[in-house]
Amino acid sequence: MKIDEVAARELLTDADHGVLSTAHTSRGVDAVPVVFALHDGHLAVPVDRVKPKAGGRLQRERNLELDPRAALLVDHWDAEDWSALWWVRAELRWDSAPPAELATELAERLARKHRQYADRPFDRLLVFEVHAVTGWTASERPTPGS
Amino acid sequence: MKIDEVAARELLTDADHGVLSTAHTSRGVDAVPVVFALHDGHLAVPVDRVKPKAGGRLQRERNLELDPRAALLVDHWDAEDWSALWWVRAELRWDSAPPAELATELAERLARKHRQYADRPFDRLLVFEVHAVTGWTASERPTPGS
Repeated sequence: MKIDEVAARELLTDADHGVLSTAHTSRGVDAVPVVFALHDGHLAVPVDRVKPKAGGRLQRERNLELDPRAALLVDHWDAEDWSALWWVRAELRWDSAPPAELATELAERLARKHRQYADRPFDRLLVFEVHAVTGWTASERPTPGS
Repeated sequence: MKIDEVAARELLTDADHGVLSTAHTSRGVDAVPVVFALHDGHLAVPVDRVKPKAGGRLQRERNLELDPRAALLVDHWDAEDWSALWWVRAELRWDSAPPAELATELAERLARKHRQYADRPFDRLLVFEVHAVTGWTASERPTPGS
Protein backbone atom coordinates (compact mmCIF):
# COMPACT_ATOMS: atom_id res chain seq x y z
CA MET A 1 0.00 0.00 0.00
CA LYS A 2 1.07 3.58 -0.56
CA ILE A 3 2.76 5.58 2.21
CA ASP A 4 1.39 9.11 2.58
CA GLU A 5 3.85 11.93 1.91
CA VAL A 6 4.24 13.02 5.57
CA ALA A 7 5.10 9.48 6.71
CA ALA A 8 7.33 8.98 3.65
CA ARG A 9 9.31 12.13 4.48
CA GLU A 10 9.75 10.95 8.08
CA LEU A 11 11.09 7.58 6.96
CA LEU A 12 13.41 9.33 4.51
CA THR A 13 14.74 11.68 7.21
CA ASP A 14 15.44 8.78 9.58
CA ALA A 15 17.17 6.60 6.98
CA ASP A 16 20.96 6.43 7.11
CA HIS A 17 21.70 5.70 3.46
CA GLY A 18 20.08 5.22 0.07
CA VAL A 19 20.70 4.74 -3.64
CA LEU A 20 21.08 7.80 -5.88
CA SER A 21 20.00 7.25 -9.48
CA THR A 22 20.94 9.68 -12.24
CA ALA A 23 20.58 9.71 -16.01
CA HIS A 24 23.62 8.48 -17.97
CA THR A 25 24.11 9.32 -21.65
CA SER A 26 25.11 5.88 -22.89
CA ARG A 27 23.98 3.55 -20.09
CA GLY A 28 20.58 5.23 -19.69
CA VAL A 29 20.72 5.20 -15.90
CA ASP A 30 23.39 5.20 -13.26
CA ALA A 31 23.12 4.30 -9.59
CA VAL A 32 25.38 4.57 -6.56
CA PRO A 33 24.86 4.21 -2.80
CA VAL A 34 25.05 7.45 -0.83
CA VAL A 35 24.57 8.98 2.59
CA PHE A 36 22.52 12.17 2.74
CA ALA A 37 20.88 14.82 4.92
CA LEU A 38 17.66 16.81 4.55
CA HIS A 39 16.78 20.40 5.36
CA ASP A 40 14.05 22.80 4.23
CA GLY A 41 12.95 20.86 1.15
CA HIS A 42 16.49 20.08 0.07
CA LEU A 43 18.65 16.99 0.20
CA ALA A 44 22.46 16.91 0.22
CA VAL A 45 24.82 14.12 -0.79
CA PRO A 46 28.49 14.51 0.15
CA VAL A 47 31.45 13.94 -2.12
CA ASP A 48 33.93 12.79 0.45
CA ARG A 49 37.36 11.47 1.31
CA VAL A 50 36.18 8.90 3.86
CA LYS A 51 35.00 6.62 1.07
CA PRO A 52 37.73 7.60 -1.40
CA LYS A 53 37.03 7.76 -5.14
CA ALA A 54 39.31 7.73 -8.16
CA GLY A 55 39.50 11.50 -7.80
CA GLY A 56 38.34 14.53 -9.73
CA ARG A 57 34.83 15.02 -10.94
CA LEU A 58 32.58 12.02 -10.30
CA GLN A 59 30.44 10.32 -12.95
CA ARG A 60 27.32 11.32 -10.98
CA GLU A 61 28.39 14.97 -11.25
CA ARG A 62 28.93 14.71 -15.01
CA ASN A 63 25.50 13.06 -15.30
CA LEU A 64 23.80 15.84 -13.33
CA GLU A 65 25.38 18.56 -15.46
CA LEU A 66 23.69 17.00 -18.52
CA ASP A 67 20.40 16.14 -16.76
CA PRO A 68 19.71 17.52 -13.26
CA ARG A 69 16.91 15.05 -12.51
CA ALA A 70 17.68 12.33 -10.00
CA ALA A 71 16.01 9.93 -7.56
CA LEU A 72 17.00 8.72 -4.13
CA LEU A 73 15.62 5.38 -3.01
CA VAL A 74 15.66 4.20 0.59
CA ASP A 75 14.48 0.67 1.22
CA HIS A 76 13.90 -1.51 4.21
CA TRP A 77 14.85 -5.11 3.48
CA ASP A 78 14.09 -8.21 5.51
CA ALA A 79 15.06 -11.48 3.81
CA GLU A 80 12.79 -13.56 6.06
CA ASP A 81 9.76 -11.37 6.60
CA TRP A 82 8.48 -9.70 3.45
CA SER A 83 5.54 -8.24 5.38
CA ALA A 84 8.11 -5.83 6.91
CA LEU A 85 9.27 -4.41 3.57
CA TRP A 86 8.92 -0.74 2.68
CA TRP A 87 10.60 1.80 0.45
CA VAL A 88 10.58 5.55 -0.02
CA ARG A 89 11.64 7.42 -3.14
CA ALA A 90 12.50 11.11 -3.39
CA GLU A 91 12.26 12.83 -6.77
CA LEU A 92 15.15 15.27 -6.96
CA ARG A 93 16.50 18.09 -9.06
CA TRP A 94 20.15 19.07 -8.73
CA ASP A 95 20.78 22.69 -7.71
CA SER A 96 24.19 23.64 -9.10
CA ALA A 97 24.43 26.84 -7.03
CA PRO A 98 22.64 26.45 -3.69
CA PRO A 99 22.57 29.40 -1.26
CA ALA A 100 25.59 29.31 1.09
CA GLU A 101 23.40 29.24 4.22
CA LEU A 102 21.50 26.22 2.96
CA ALA A 103 24.70 24.37 2.08
CA THR A 104 26.16 25.13 5.52
CA GLU A 105 23.09 23.84 7.31
CA LEU A 106 23.05 20.68 5.20
CA ALA A 107 26.75 20.13 5.86
CA GLU A 108 26.18 20.45 9.61
CA ARG A 109 23.32 17.99 9.48
CA LEU A 110 25.45 15.47 7.61
CA ALA A 111 28.23 15.78 10.19
CA ARG A 112 25.73 15.26 13.04
CA LYS A 113 24.23 12.23 11.28
CA HIS A 114 27.52 10.47 10.49
CA ARG A 115 30.31 10.67 13.05
CA GLN A 116 32.75 9.55 10.31
CA TYR A 117 32.74 13.17 9.08
CA ALA A 118 33.91 14.51 12.46
CA ASP A 119 37.63 14.28 11.71
CA ARG A 120 37.58 13.86 7.91
CA PRO A 121 35.03 16.26 6.45
CA PHE A 122 33.73 15.78 2.92
CA ASP A 123 35.11 17.71 -0.05
CA ARG A 124 31.88 19.19 -1.35
CA LEU A 125 28.13 18.71 -1.41
CA LEU A 126 25.66 17.87 -4.14
CA VAL A 127 22.47 19.73 -3.24
CA PHE A 128 19.05 18.76 -4.64
CA GLU A 129 15.56 20.22 -4.43
CA VAL A 130 13.14 17.54 -3.22
CA HIS A 131 10.15 17.63 -5.61
CA ALA A 132 8.13 14.76 -4.20
CA VAL A 133 8.46 11.87 -1.78
CA THR A 134 6.46 8.72 -2.39
CA GLY A 135 6.60 5.27 -0.88
CA TRP A 136 5.21 1.79 -0.54
CA THR A 137 4.85 -0.49 2.44
CA ALA A 138 3.77 -4.11 2.87
CA SER A 139 2.36 -3.47 6.36
CA GLU A 140 0.32 -0.81 8.18
CA ARG A 141 3.25 0.45 10.26
CA PRO A 142 6.62 0.63 8.54
CA THR A 143 9.57 0.30 10.94
CA PRO A 144 12.10 3.15 10.56
CA GLY A 145 15.71 2.36 9.68
CA SER A 146 17.26 1.13 6.46
CA MET B 1 39.11 0.60 -5.08
CA LYS B 2 37.57 -1.14 -8.09
CA ILE B 3 36.30 -4.71 -7.85
CA ASP B 4 37.31 -6.87 -10.82
CA GLU B 5 34.48 -8.21 -12.95
CA VAL B 6 34.75 -11.84 -11.78
CA ALA B 7 34.56 -10.85 -8.10
CA ALA B 8 31.81 -8.34 -8.87
CA ARG B 9 29.69 -11.03 -10.57
CA GLU B 10 30.17 -13.33 -7.56
CA LEU B 11 29.01 -10.64 -5.14
CA LEU B 12 26.03 -9.91 -7.39
CA THR B 13 25.05 -13.59 -7.55
CA ASP B 14 25.21 -13.94 -3.77
CA ALA B 15 23.21 -10.79 -3.03
CA ASP B 16 19.59 -11.24 -2.02
CA HIS B 17 18.17 -7.92 -3.23
CA GLY B 18 19.06 -4.71 -5.03
CA VAL B 19 17.73 -1.49 -6.51
CA LEU B 20 16.55 -1.46 -10.13
CA SER B 21 16.88 1.91 -11.87
CA THR B 22 15.11 2.66 -15.14
CA ALA B 23 14.64 5.76 -17.28
CA HIS B 24 11.42 7.71 -16.70
CA THR B 25 10.07 10.18 -19.26
CA SER B 26 9.20 13.03 -16.91
CA ARG B 27 11.16 12.21 -13.74
CA GLY B 28 14.35 11.30 -15.62
CA VAL B 29 15.03 8.22 -13.52
CA ASP B 30 13.01 5.78 -11.52
CA ALA B 31 14.17 3.32 -8.87
CA VAL B 32 12.59 0.46 -6.97
CA PRO B 33 13.93 -2.34 -4.73
CA VAL B 34 13.81 -5.81 -6.27
CA VAL B 35 14.84 -9.41 -5.77
CA PHE B 36 16.49 -11.12 -8.71
CA ALA B 37 18.25 -14.21 -10.05
CA LEU B 38 21.07 -14.69 -12.56
CA HIS B 39 21.69 -17.29 -15.23
CA ASP B 40 23.83 -17.43 -18.36
CA GLY B 41 24.47 -13.70 -18.68
CA HIS B 42 20.88 -12.79 -17.89
CA LEU B 43 19.17 -11.37 -14.84
CA ALA B 44 15.49 -11.77 -13.95
CA VAL B 45 13.29 -9.63 -11.72
CA PRO B 46 9.88 -11.01 -10.75
CA VAL B 47 6.61 -9.16 -10.86
CA ASP B 48 4.86 -10.87 -8.02
CA ARG B 49 1.86 -11.19 -5.75
CA VAL B 50 3.84 -11.66 -2.53
CA LYS B 51 4.65 -7.97 -2.44
CA PRO B 52 1.35 -6.80 -3.96
CA LYS B 53 1.22 -3.78 -6.27
CA ALA B 54 -1.58 -1.50 -7.37
CA GLY B 55 -2.16 -3.97 -10.22
CA GLY B 56 -1.81 -4.05 -13.96
CA ARG B 57 1.31 -2.97 -15.80
CA LEU B 58 3.97 -1.55 -13.49
CA GLN B 59 5.68 1.81 -14.02
CA ARG B 60 9.02 -0.01 -14.41
CA GLU B 61 7.52 -1.98 -17.30
CA ARG B 62 6.19 1.15 -19.01
CA ASN B 63 9.64 2.70 -18.56
CA LEU B 64 11.40 -0.28 -20.13
CA GLU B 65 9.11 -0.26 -23.17
CA LEU B 66 10.29 3.29 -23.90
CA ASP B 67 13.95 2.72 -22.96
CA PRO B 68 15.20 -0.85 -22.35
CA ARG B 69 18.36 0.27 -20.52
CA ALA B 70 18.47 -0.31 -16.78
CA ALA B 71 20.86 -0.74 -13.87
CA LEU B 72 20.78 -2.94 -10.81
CA LEU B 73 22.72 -1.80 -7.79
CA VAL B 74 23.59 -4.05 -4.87
CA ASP B 75 25.25 -2.41 -1.92
CA HIS B 76 26.70 -3.53 1.36
CA TRP B 77 26.03 -0.99 4.10
CA ASP B 78 27.55 -0.77 7.56
CA ALA B 79 26.62 2.36 9.51
CA GLU B 80 29.53 1.97 11.95
CA ASP B 81 32.34 0.61 9.81
CA TRP B 82 32.71 2.38 6.48
CA SER B 83 35.82 0.32 5.70
CA ALA B 84 33.39 -2.59 5.11
CA LEU B 85 31.39 -0.83 2.39
CA TRP B 86 31.13 -2.16 -1.15
CA TRP B 87 28.74 -2.01 -4.06
CA VAL B 88 28.24 -3.75 -7.37
CA ARG B 89 26.33 -2.41 -10.36
CA ALA B 90 25.02 -4.41 -13.32
CA GLU B 91 24.34 -2.62 -16.59
CA LEU B 92 21.23 -4.18 -18.06
CA ARG B 93 19.15 -4.22 -21.21
CA TRP B 94 15.58 -5.45 -21.06
CA ASP B 95 14.77 -8.42 -23.30
CA SER B 96 11.05 -8.22 -24.11
CA ALA B 97 10.91 -11.75 -25.54
CA PRO B 98 13.40 -14.04 -23.78
CA PRO B 99 13.64 -17.71 -24.87
CA ALA B 100 11.24 -19.90 -22.88
CA GLU B 101 14.04 -22.15 -21.59
CA LEU B 102 15.95 -19.20 -20.23
CA ALA B 103 12.86 -17.80 -18.52
CA THR B 104 12.09 -21.17 -16.96
CA GLU B 105 15.60 -21.55 -15.60
CA LEU B 106 15.55 -18.02 -14.18
CA ALA B 107 12.16 -18.66 -12.57
CA GLU B 108 13.48 -21.83 -10.93
CA ARG B 109 16.51 -19.99 -9.62
CA LEU B 110 14.32 -17.29 -8.12
CA ALA B 111 12.14 -19.86 -6.38
CA ARG B 112 15.22 -21.59 -4.94
CA LYS B 113 16.64 -18.28 -3.75
CA HIS B 114 13.47 -16.99 -2.05
CA ARG B 115 11.29 -19.50 -0.23
CA GLN B 116 8.46 -16.91 -0.29
CA TYR B 117 7.79 -17.97 -3.88
CA ALA B 118 7.20 -21.60 -2.90
CA ASP B 119 3.47 -21.25 -2.32
CA ARG B 120 2.74 -17.93 -4.05
CA PRO B 121 4.65 -17.83 -7.33
CA PHE B 122 5.22 -14.56 -9.14
CA ASP B 123 3.04 -13.41 -12.05
CA ARG B 124 5.75 -12.84 -14.63
CA LEU B 125 9.44 -12.09 -15.07
CA LEU B 126 11.34 -9.12 -16.40
CA VAL B 127 14.42 -10.57 -18.12
CA PHE B 128 17.53 -8.49 -18.83
CA GLU B 129 20.80 -9.09 -20.63
CA VAL B 130 23.73 -8.28 -18.33
CA HIS B 131 26.09 -6.05 -20.32
CA ALA B 132 28.69 -5.33 -17.66
CA VAL B 133 29.19 -5.69 -13.93
CA THR B 134 31.37 -3.18 -12.12
CA GLY B 135 31.95 -2.46 -8.46
CA TRP B 136 33.75 -0.58 -5.73
CA THR B 137 35.01 -1.66 -2.33
CA ALA B 138 36.54 0.20 0.60
CA SER B 139 38.59 -2.84 1.68
CA GLU B 140 40.63 -5.60 0.07
CA ARG B 141 38.10 -8.35 0.79
CA PRO B 142 34.45 -7.42 0.41
CA THR B 143 32.13 -9.51 2.65
CA PRO B 144 29.28 -11.11 0.65
CA GLY B 145 25.68 -10.35 1.58
CA SER B 146 23.63 -7.22 1.16
